[in-house]
Amino acid sequence: MTETQKSPRILILGAGAIGAFYGLALAEAGAEVSVVVRSEYDIVKANGYALNSQQRGDKVFRPAQVLSSVEQYQGGCPDYLVVTLKVIDGLDRVSLMRSAVGPQTVIVLIENGVEIEDEIAQAFPDNELISCLAFIQVSRIAPGVIIHYAFDALTMGNFPQGVSNKCKQFSSMLISSQVGAPLTENVVSARWQKCLWNAPFNPVSVLGGPIDTIKMLNAPSGEQLIRDLMREVALVASATGNPVPEGLIDTYISSTKKAPPYKTSMALDWERGDPMEVTVILDNTLAAAKRVGVVTPCLQTVTTLIKMLQLKKSEEK
Amino acid sequence: MTETQKSPRILILGAGAIGAFYGLALAEAGAEVSVVVRSEYDIVKANGYALNSQQRGDKVFRPAQVLSSVEQYQGGCPDYLVVTLKVIDGLDRVSLMRSAVGPQTVIVLIENGVEIEDEIAQAFPDNELISCLAFIQVSRIAPGVIIHYAFDALTMGNFPQGVSNKCKQFSSMLISSQVGAPLTENVVSARWQKCLWNAPFNPVSVLGGPIDTIKMLNAPSGEQLIRDLMREVALVASATGNPVPEGLIDTYISSTKKAPPYKTSMALDWERGDPMEVTVILDNTLAAAKRVGVVTPCLQTVTTLIKMLQLKKSEEK
Repeated sequence: MTETQKSPRILILGAGAIGAFYGLALAEAGAEVSVVVRSEYDIVKANGYALNSQQRGDKVFRPAQVLSSVEQYQGGCPDYLVVTLKVIDGLDRVSLMRSAVGPQTVIVLIENGVEIEDEIAQAFPDNELISCLAFIQVSRIAPGVIIHYAFDALTMGNFPQGVSNKCKQFSSMLISSQVGAPLTENVVSARWQKCLWNAPFNPVSVLGGPIDTIKMLNAPSGEQLIRDLMREVALVASATGNPVPEGLIDTYISSTKKAPPYKTSMALDWERGDPMEVTVILDNTLAAAKRVGVVTPCLQTVTTLIKMLQLKKSEEK
Repeated sequence: MTETQKSPRILILGAGAIGAFYGLALAEAGAEVSVVVRSEYDIVKANGYALNSQQRGDKVFRPAQVLSSVEQYQGGCPDYLVVTLKVIDGLDRVSLMRSAVGPQTVIVLIENGVEIEDEIAQAFPDNELISCLAFIQVSRIAPGVIIHYAFDALTMGNFPQGVSNKCKQFSSMLISSQVGAPLTENVVSARWQKCLWNAPFNPVSVLGGPIDTIKMLNAPSGEQLIRDLMREVALVASATGNPVPEGLIDTYISSTKKAPPYKTSMALDWERGDPMEVTVILDNTLAAAKRVGVVTPCLQTVTTLIKMLQLKKSEEK
């Protein structure tokens, strides 16, 4: 940004660990960052967010406006509406967003999974849409308290493709705060590449334990199962027009083996009793598979099993 | 038996719930029935087995000899050595049996799973081998205390095929005690037919919960998963020369739906922390699949997952 530019006004919808982390970075870059939070409204309103990060130090993030609903946002629609809502069944993202989307508002989705953009693109056809993938280990350990463990990159690009000036501006703000924000001309392919890791490791980490990445790979036939699942995802990705790079499966397996034992987000959600991102990671992959006519027996099996587990836990509550 | 025949001498190796149930029926038919037990030796030696059955009344079964090892058996080798040992990894059935197998001893296997006979047939090539499948709900609820809930049929035939006079005699003894003991000319095919139910429902009941049969079938895509698994088992069975009857999958699904919710033996073992019969039900099916060149992705997936669970539990002990 040059000094003559007005600070962008950013509203973060669903500011959990991810939203708070990137929100602070954007605020540090000079943006006017507000948040909509629900369950931790009182604490965040009073104290802001406490962010503890070995890499970045301990900081407090005090949003410009702390709101319990989008409708309360003051000063007109934001320049960027950043959506960090978890996509889970029964959550109507579009109606939650509606009142904050003005003609000039750029919608920024920070979410896991594949094929998550269509619903938003169809609901707001005249708004620019930036789709982002977070490669970060960050957790909310108490209301308003966020721990940042490792990594920080937010890969982004416009949906369905390309990189706009607004997208570059958003990336630049993060980079100016020393947060990785690589641009991609084809964010849909980037999603499939991330899904190639997520769709196998996440459900298996829950069904097989919960267990960490190393235990999964070392179990009898464990690596084989992960590879079989990856091959199915790769076939679907390719059939949707987003072939993953040659050798990516081997790369993922070997880098996961070299990295420390890692608990997937689904395993963490499961242990906390939180809803798991079955819809965006698994159902959306299976829906794509069906649409393009790819057979995915292993993926279908783990998805059905994880839904049984989820259903059982919800009935026990 | 005619009155001129000598009472058959029967030794039951691994007399848990199944062994005690059929052992009592055989004793009631006039056989001299002894047992080898390990963990509950003292109690069974002192009190015999208490068998509680709505169908058959409450009874006490006092074996002729209660032994803690096969080597202690008095009076020469038995006419029938009935093996009710669970086939689990690390258990060497052959060496446990060795000293009780004389030239005339008929070996009777009462076990779940497929392809469990070869090892025994190769170790004792000159002995007659009867292979049995128990369709019974019976549980050991405390040392020496057995509850019989429902059913009782022991389907049997010689391995690899046929029905010998000794096999008929064994069946007749059970029938004379009002226990079902149908004879089959092709016990290997009968095993595959039972496996068609066991291999899908058992692992899914553990991985998806543990949950009962009705919850499995009612879960989203649950029936589909069970049917996919059944189709894979049917393909393997057919390729091994044991095609299952046309329509058996539909029959199994509809009869399971009509029956009361049922917890599989694997789910019960899992809840009790006992070893699950993964080897005979799943590994042996997968080994057969590999041998005959049938692809079984769903079955491989549930098998790998259940081994992860099993490994995790064993590490926690």
